[in-house]
Amino acid sequence: MQALKLYNSLSRKKELFEPINPGHVGMYVCGPTVYNNVHLGNLRTFLTFDVLYRYLLHVGYKVRYVRNITDVGHLVGDGDEGEDKIGKMAKLEKLEPMEVVQRYTNDFHDVLRQFNFLPPSIEPSATGHLVEQIEAVQDLIGKGLAYESNGSVYFDINKYNEGGHRYGKLSGRILEDLLNETRALDGQAEKRNPLDFAIWKKAAPEHIMQWNSPWGKGFPGWHLECTCMSVKYLGNQFDIHGGGMDLKFPHHECEIAQGVGLTGEDPVKYWMHSNMLTVNGQKMSKSLGNSFLPKELISGSHPLLEQAYSP
Amino acid sequence: MQALKLYNSLSRKKELFEPINPGHVGMYVCGPTVYNNVHLGNLRTFLTFDVLYRYLLHVGYKVRYVRNITDVGHLVGDGDEGEDKIGKMAKLEKLEPMEVVQRYTNDFHDVLRQFNFLPPSIEPSATGHLVEQIEAVQDLIGKGLAYESNGSVYFDINKYNEGGHRYGKLSGRILEDLLNETRALDGQAEKRNPLDFAIWKKAAPEHIMQWNSPWGKGFPGWHLECTCMSVKYLGNQFDIHGGGMDLKFPHHECEIAQGVGLTGEDPVKYWMHSNMLTVNGQKMSKSLGNSFLPKELISGSHPLLEQAYSP
Repeated sequence: MQALKLYNSLSRKKELFEPINPGHVGMYVCGPTVYNNVHLGNLRTFLTFDVLYRYLLHVGYKVRYVRNITDVGHLVGDGDEGEDKIGKMAKLEKLEPMEVVQRYTNDFHDVLRQFNFLPPSIEPSATGHLVEQIEAVQDLIGKGLAYESNGSVYFDINKYNEGGHRYGKLSGRILEDLLNETRALDGQAEKRNPLDFAIWKKAAPEHIMQWNSPWGKGFPGWHLECTCMSVKYLGNQFDIHGGGMDLKFPHHECEIAQGVGLTGEDPVKYWMHSNMLTVNGQKMSKSLGNSFLPKELISGSHPLLEQAYSP
Repeated sequence: MQALKLYNSLSRKKELFEPINPGHVGMYVCGPTVYNNVHLGNLRTFLTFDVLYRYLLHVGYKVRYVRNITDVGHLVGDGDEGEDKIGKMAKLEKLEPMEVVQRYTNDFHDVLRQFNFLPPSIEPSATGHLVEQIEAVQDLIGKGLAYESNGSVYFDINKYNEGGHRYGKLSGRILEDLLNETRALDGQAEKRNPLDFAIWKKAAPEHIMQWNSPWGKGFPGWHLECTCMSVKYLGNQFDIHGGGMDLKFPHHECEIAQGVGLTGEDPVKYWMHSNMLTVNGQKMSKSLGNSFLPKELISGSHPLLEQAYSP
């Protein structure tokens, strides 16, 4: 097999790629939260890993490529408080949340097809793994690494670190700095440490997407789904975990903590992050007014574009 | 709104269509079990309801169209015993069951796109509704309409009929005739009445797809998913339920029994069934050697076809 070097975000070095099981690669990439049209920055991330997937196949690996669909639990602001992104859009559009999921999953697939992406081996969804997530929460509570508070369950960062681990090792964050940056938010009072993160959230009655659990009606924390789905389909330890740079902290940091907590093993051998998309040297962002959709790139119908581009 | 008459399989009559909520239509259609390439007979069923969906939109209804993906629980032989169709294919192809699901869901979507079908409003999956199915089983046990036996749970036909209902009313089956037709199968000893059907099945260790439940490790009965998903997204009573004629018994008969048992209400106002596809007057079937795939219809590359047909 041809030698391949990958930049590992965890070690911050280029490393020779050596899969855990010779000849086989397990790769997990964080997919979209399907509450709006996929933007060009998302597309760039998935393109990065499509190229890697094709290259791994090309050199002869048998690859299981898992890319999830987030259809519940991702809150506005990416934190532990607030509305579900999909639930919010459902209210705005007067739709059932699963109609929102369906609409934007279709859009996502349509765009990826236009750009000739290979479909992943498995495309699991968060709502498709509620049983697994509830069991993971029970398991973490049983191991003393999580605690219930007012119907929600939080991962206990202090207990995790006391076990010889270091929350922050992927992103290089220092706990003291993080503590100083923590804003006083509703719900922080439920936590033993402001850095603890939700793995199960109590649902307010007006929160549309909710399920019964041992802790009452609620929904899974955003970070937990990726741990449950990657472990289920790729095992306790797998080769490559990818995603956009913006997911490194806290999302992937939390995935490491959850994985180590549940299985005792560091879940990922090579962490890979694609950088943010820039336009004329600036980060592409809706708020800066320099963002366009994949279909605008193809049609050329955007003031920033001088021509149309073939996908 | 223009008058529309539909043939209702339940009344066996053409009836004037009057939706439960004026101006709105809730429609559920049994989707594919994604363990092989979609065949032309499946396609004919989905085409029938695509035409109906388009017509309902055309005359001005707001339609919520739910078509599910069966990704667990449908056993070889369509009964209560045997291998899961997807699990069996996973063993044959040496894949994770969810890789089988992904492959054939992609094929299904590709074919439907070629034929210019409209996507449904929601495309829920059985594995996406395990919590709901487990709760429905608990509910039916609590109501005395189901019982656990050796780790499986069965719907109690006698109890249902004692409540003034008639299992068999959709398909026109007579219980005595059905009893005489019942074959002696493994597992029948677990049932109080040989016509009782599984709503939860105990999983043998070699059964790949299984989840924890109050009754041990198992998986949901095939009939239950459609009840849980239609009730969740369309309510206890909805307007139209469609599917192929081959699903009328036992699948749809069981859906009525489960729906009545859970909610006290007859779930569906208009039952619609599309007939089997025929080739030169004979039912199309793999065993008769007269079946071809949608792509063969388009390419004309099958001995029974004299030309290619545009989708």
